[in-house]
Amino acid sequence: MRDPRYDILFEPVRIGPVTTKNRFFQVPHCNGMGHAMPLAHAAMREVKAEGGWGVISTEECEIHPSSDLTPYVEARLWDDRDIPALALMCDKVHAHGALAALELSHNGPTASNLYSREVLLAPSHQPSKYGYPAQARAMDLHDIAEYRRWHREAAVRGMKAGMDIIYVYAAHDLSLPMHFLQRRRNQRSDAYGGSLENRIRLLREVLQDTREAVGHRCAVALRFATEELLGPGGVELAEAQDIVGMLAELPDLWDVNLAAWYNDSVPSRFAREGAQEPFIDFVRKATTKPVVGVGRFTSPDTMVSQIRRGVIDLIGAARPSIADPYLPRKIEEGRIDDIRECIGCNICVSGDMTISPIRCTQNPSMGEEWRKGWHPERIAPKASEARVLVVGGGPAGLEAARALGQRGYEVHLADARRELGGRVTREARLPGLAEWARVRDWRLGQIGKLANVSTYLDSALTAQDVLDFGADHVVIATGCHWRRDGFGRSHGLGIADFADNARVFTPDDLMDGRWPEGRVVVYDDDYFYTASVVAEALRLRGCEVTYLTPDDTIASWSANTLDYRHIQWRMAELGVVQRVSHLVTGYTGTTLALEHAWSAAASSLECDAVVVVTARLPDDALYQALKAREPEWTDAGIRSVACIGDALAPGLIAHAVYAGHRYAQELDARRDGEVPFKRHFHHDPTRT
Amino acid sequence: MRDPRYDILFEPVRIGPVTTKNRFFQVPHCNGMGHAMPLAHAAMREVKAEGGWGVISTEECEIHPSSDLTPYVEARLWDDRDIPALALMCDKVHAHGALAALELSHNGPTASNLYSREVLLAPSHQPSKYGYPAQARAMDLHDIAEYRRWHREAAVRGMKAGMDIIYVYAAHDLSLPMHFLQRRRNQRSDAYGGSLENRIRLLREVLQDTREAVGHRCAVALRFATEELLGPGGVELAEAQDIVGMLAELPDLWDVNLAAWYNDSVPSRFAREGAQEPFIDFVRKATTKPVVGVGRFTSPDTMVSQIRRGVIDLIGAARPSIADPYLPRKIEEGRIDDIRECIGCNICVSGDMTISPIRCTQNPSMGEEWRKGWHPERIAPKASEARVLVVGGGPAGLEAARALGQRGYEVHLADARRELGGRVTREARLPGLAEWARVRDWRLGQIGKLANVSTYLDSALTAQDVLDFGADHVVIATGCHWRRDGFGRSHGLGIADFADNARVFTPDDLMDGRWPEGRVVVYDDDYFYTASVVAEALRLRGCEVTYLTPDDTIASWSANTLDYRHIQWRMAELGVVQRVSHLVTGYTGTTLALEHAWSAAASSLECDAVVVVTARLPDDALYQALKAREPEWTDAGIRSVACIGDALAPGLIAHAVYAGHRYAQELDARRDGEVPFKRHFHHDPTRT
Repeated sequence: MRDPRYDILFEPVRIGPVTTKNRFFQVPHCNGMGHAMPLAHAAMREVKAEGGWGVISTEECEIHPSSDLTPYVEARLWDDRDIPALALMCDKVHAHGALAALELSHNGPTASNLYSREVLLAPSHQPSKYGYPAQARAMDLHDIAEYRRWHREAAVRGMKAGMDIIYVYAAHDLSLPMHFLQRRRNQRSDAYGGSLENRIRLLREVLQDTREAVGHRCAVALRFATEELLGPGGVELAEAQDIVGMLAELPDLWDVNLAAWYNDSVPSRFAREGAQEPFIDFVRKATTKPVVGVGRFTSPDTMVSQIRRGVIDLIGAARPSIADPYLPRKIEEGRIDDIRECIGCNICVSGDMTISPIRCTQNPSMGEEWRKGWHPERIAPKASEARVLVVGGGPAGLEAARALGQRGYEVHLADARRELGGRVTREARLPGLAEWARVRDWRLGQIGKLANVSTYLDSALTAQDVLDFGADHVVIATGCHWRRDGFGRSHGLGIADFADNARVFTPDDLMDGRWPEGRVVVYDDDYFYTASVVAEALRLRGCEVTYLTPDDTIASWSANTLDYRHIQWRMAELGVVQRVSHLVTGYTGTTLALEHAWSAAASSLECDAVVVVTARLPDDALYQALKAREPEWTDAGIRSVACIGDALAPGLIAHAVYAGHRYAQELDARRDGEVPFKRHFHHDPTRT
Repeated sequence: MRDPRYDILFEPVRIGPVTTKNRFFQVPHCNGMGHAMPLAHAAMREVKAEGGWGVISTEECEIHPSSDLTPYVEARLWDDRDIPALALMCDKVHAHGALAALELSHNGPTASNLYSREVLLAPSHQPSKYGYPAQARAMDLHDIAEYRRWHREAAVRGMKAGMDIIYVYAAHDLSLPMHFLQRRRNQRSDAYGGSLENRIRLLREVLQDTREAVGHRCAVALRFATEELLGPGGVELAEAQDIVGMLAELPDLWDVNLAAWYNDSVPSRFAREGAQEPFIDFVRKATTKPVVGVGRFTSPDTMVSQIRRGVIDLIGAARPSIADPYLPRKIEEGRIDDIRECIGCNICVSGDMTISPIRCTQNPSMGEEWRKGWHPERIAPKASEARVLVVGGGPAGLEAARALGQRGYEVHLADARRELGGRVTREARLPGLAEWARVRDWRLGQIGKLANVSTYLDSALTAQDVLDFGADHVVIATGCHWRRDGFGRSHGLGIADFADNARVFTPDDLMDGRWPEGRVVVYDDDYFYTASVVAEALRLRGCEVTYLTPDDTIASWSANTLDYRHIQWRMAELGVVQRVSHLVTGYTGTTLALEHAWSAAASSLECDAVVVVTARLPDDALYQALKAREPEWTDAGIRSVACIGDALAPGLIAHAVYAGHRYAQELDARRDGEVPFKRHFHHDPTRT
């Protein structure tokens, strides 16, 4: 089955006292479930082990209450009572022949201690990184000894839980061994500050401590950032090369990447597969120990190339393992075109950021393994002989058709346009978003293999057409459109001058090929990616662009996907002018009237056009027409009509895929009660 | 004991089928524990019942997965499995003769559904309020019927849990009955939109539903916002007056306030005690039902006046009940000067905002009732005959001395200055912060009653003085000072031109009476309140002020205390110029050199002075000197030397008070393990 050229990916690799069965290594990644939802967390990790990953890591794991990451929900090993939650994961990972890895961390001044109320610790006195209004204190030698004890004890707890690999963490600007390295965080004048040898002393000690504590049973991995891209204020490549040289044989495994997180997990809009190579490829030459690195690898050829060219030994992955937990197994089984490739949208990251369970645009089962029993590859067979008509081939309709087809239903998918993919196809043509087309392409590939799914292009349907079609179930997934009337968060009653103004454009106009020229204002009351992509597209077409928003920063929600900083840099590079904290009050001729959000001061802006990115409206005319004719359904043989995705409520592509999948999962299923999933309870549900 | 003029506060009041024993009514308030920490939550509410409050309410309670407030942790009644957590609270509240009240809420477009993944609901299609990238959909008549069913079922669950009062919630722009009222959220053309009668239809129906479901046992309260302060875009007083007239006798109780939350729980910097009166005083004249209102009431005379003047019938309180859970009992016992008055700093709010358990600057036991067994009034008696020397009479030292004194220790409190209070005294003199002095005043009042606590002013101590003093335990609480060298989040290596520059001032200079003049830049790398207070003070002294910050907005952390909007408005009113996203790179003569945070573009700013608000350093010279002489401690009779509060790690006043209290709680106590508190576990700690 397997293409021999991929054999190298399935070679076992020895890592200290343990051996991974292949080169697929799920590096640590956050998931928003962590210690709060241990059953859900273990089930998510298990599916990856089942899918063939040789190593499955936790997210970062707090080793002590003085490294409390509240509100973020990561792993926790404060004392022995925390062992069972992680043991759950180990048992499930081991059941599939994979190794379990634990990323121990004390986050020093990058913790919050909002829950524990302990004082933050750091190499030197300094403010907490994330804006919390408490400073970290400079650790004295007693504190350093205590920290080393906590780390040893946590390593032992990890070993007791069943972990095979214990990480020492010095990456992402998130842990004390890295903070001691950083000149900007370490102004000590003792043996732990000053020279490089002094600044790496703590890292060296903790590596040795960990080996002494658990090295007889567990491999000791070092996760290390080779570059922070901050210039002389941060860790730079030259210094990292020295450090790797100095510590080369100390860990059993090097896991190398860029810091901070936004430079590591860069959205596809701002970085391609394998983008870290120039920053990490020196490591393998400097050590005999295996090296793992990441690059959002989804192509087995790229993976093989990485190994053959001596860049890395183990294919590290977080996002690709989220989008496709079965990626290794699909390569092994020669099913390359079944790989559900990560699109690099970073919705997965937004789970951690919003303290909610991880989601994935491509893989709607992510985070639902335990609570809904969803699986990325398997789904219950059909429960009836029903024929299903899916109207609309965007992300919701495509996923509904695919998953219904997988269940064995007879599915008919109709789209009014000449191409499938809906908004995915349209948005993927905007600058930087090309990889998002994978949402469409994977589904088209899967649907192409299903004889029970028929597709019809160029097929706009009326309510009468639907009634005539003869389907048992009808799913309307006809998408949405951007509003032209200014209605949105800041304009609950709209903007009167916008509604019928030829100078006012929507993102749909642009995607339909109607582009403004000259001086263009992009008015963003949406706060995520669309306005910045539109601004970029306009600038690339030669327009003068002002990014105007009532919010106090541009693209504020994009901080949750690690886009924010990259968007700011991109806008600056492109010369997009920003005007924040301003509301539009009118638009006459070429004069846009503005009001300051806080001072209410009036001002104006001359522009030839406005692209208005505020809110959307469902394209649900067909659904409403069918609802109005509900009395005729029975005669037409229709048992249900549903509306899903943007046609129900405009959201992200991730929401649309989820809606399509959910529809397919729930067809013919019985629903009990108001809560369609299992929950973790924090108090015994039987009153005692 | 009780002053007869306060008798009226202790009259019972009938509320529908139930009667509260007095007029003290803890209105619903968030606490960051909610459904995730039910034991901690119940214990916190119990202490208030014990302290004499007649009614104790929950926080808002989610009635359905389509109103999931993740990441915020509120109450939850999605199904019967959620009853036990709230029954815990009811049992504890009833044990002290108080009534329990439940605030049911469906938050519509102000929910997130990040955890449940349900589609958001709203009167009309609209974006989610808080920036989440998914829109709410317009509810159809079936949805409205379902919502009413969910609300009825949740009311019944609340009654089963033991609740005495069930709230219908139409306030804070946070619930569907209010959203249907709001023209900006309701563009419906059916019986639920358009005219006022139509827009209040849902509220009327839900009030009736609730009465039908539980009215035989429970009172039905309506929490209603009379004004949003948004002008014609929001609910305005005139319309609210019409609504109160139309629904006057329908609820058993009116709980009235301003929307949104930032207009209700206004920090003391921006609103005084009783500030809501002009917006709510009409209600009592329009109904025969009892009315509760809030105003951060801490003075019993003000409370009596509110009742006698016919403003309200019941003294609503959230913050005052947090700062002093025993407020009613202290009035009853004639212990007026023991009342620990709320300072209006809104650190309590920041718990909910940061998804962590509620904290209080004045009451360090808040949120610690269950997990640490702390109580706002009681503390364990001393466990030894130790004499304790507290050096420094700021918030940490004062609280340590007070609580140690309460335990019965012989306490000696020395301060180098001629007045006690430390930073509290100094900061309270800055514009808007006068009420913060209550942190000092309450502690001085309590200490004044303790014969075993001696205070020494104008007493700077050397290490030799401390060794000579003859204390068993020494606590150093000598505070901190603002850095002058620019060191902070954005300048890990400082700003070279700042260190010895006579044009560079710190907040300490200002508080010491050394004020700059002319064109002054306030450089904020701290992100909370200090820079805006400094800017305000400078502007009031006639300076031209520019608020400069590397952050993308001013005062970003102040969103967590509801200060943010008020700060923005205040800065605008005062004419403080903002320059965000800029770093200082140099300061020569009167020219400040700047670099844009994103474009790296260089610019400059002419100014006569800079006030630098970046980071602080502990004033720990005495502590360090004592540590250096540790070998001499035994001969001096010293068993321990500790450093607490800002002298250990600069933080908020709340952190300092907590540190002082913790020191006192833990003196002579045994500590086991690394986690000094009980936890809620989300998985059975015995591995099964």
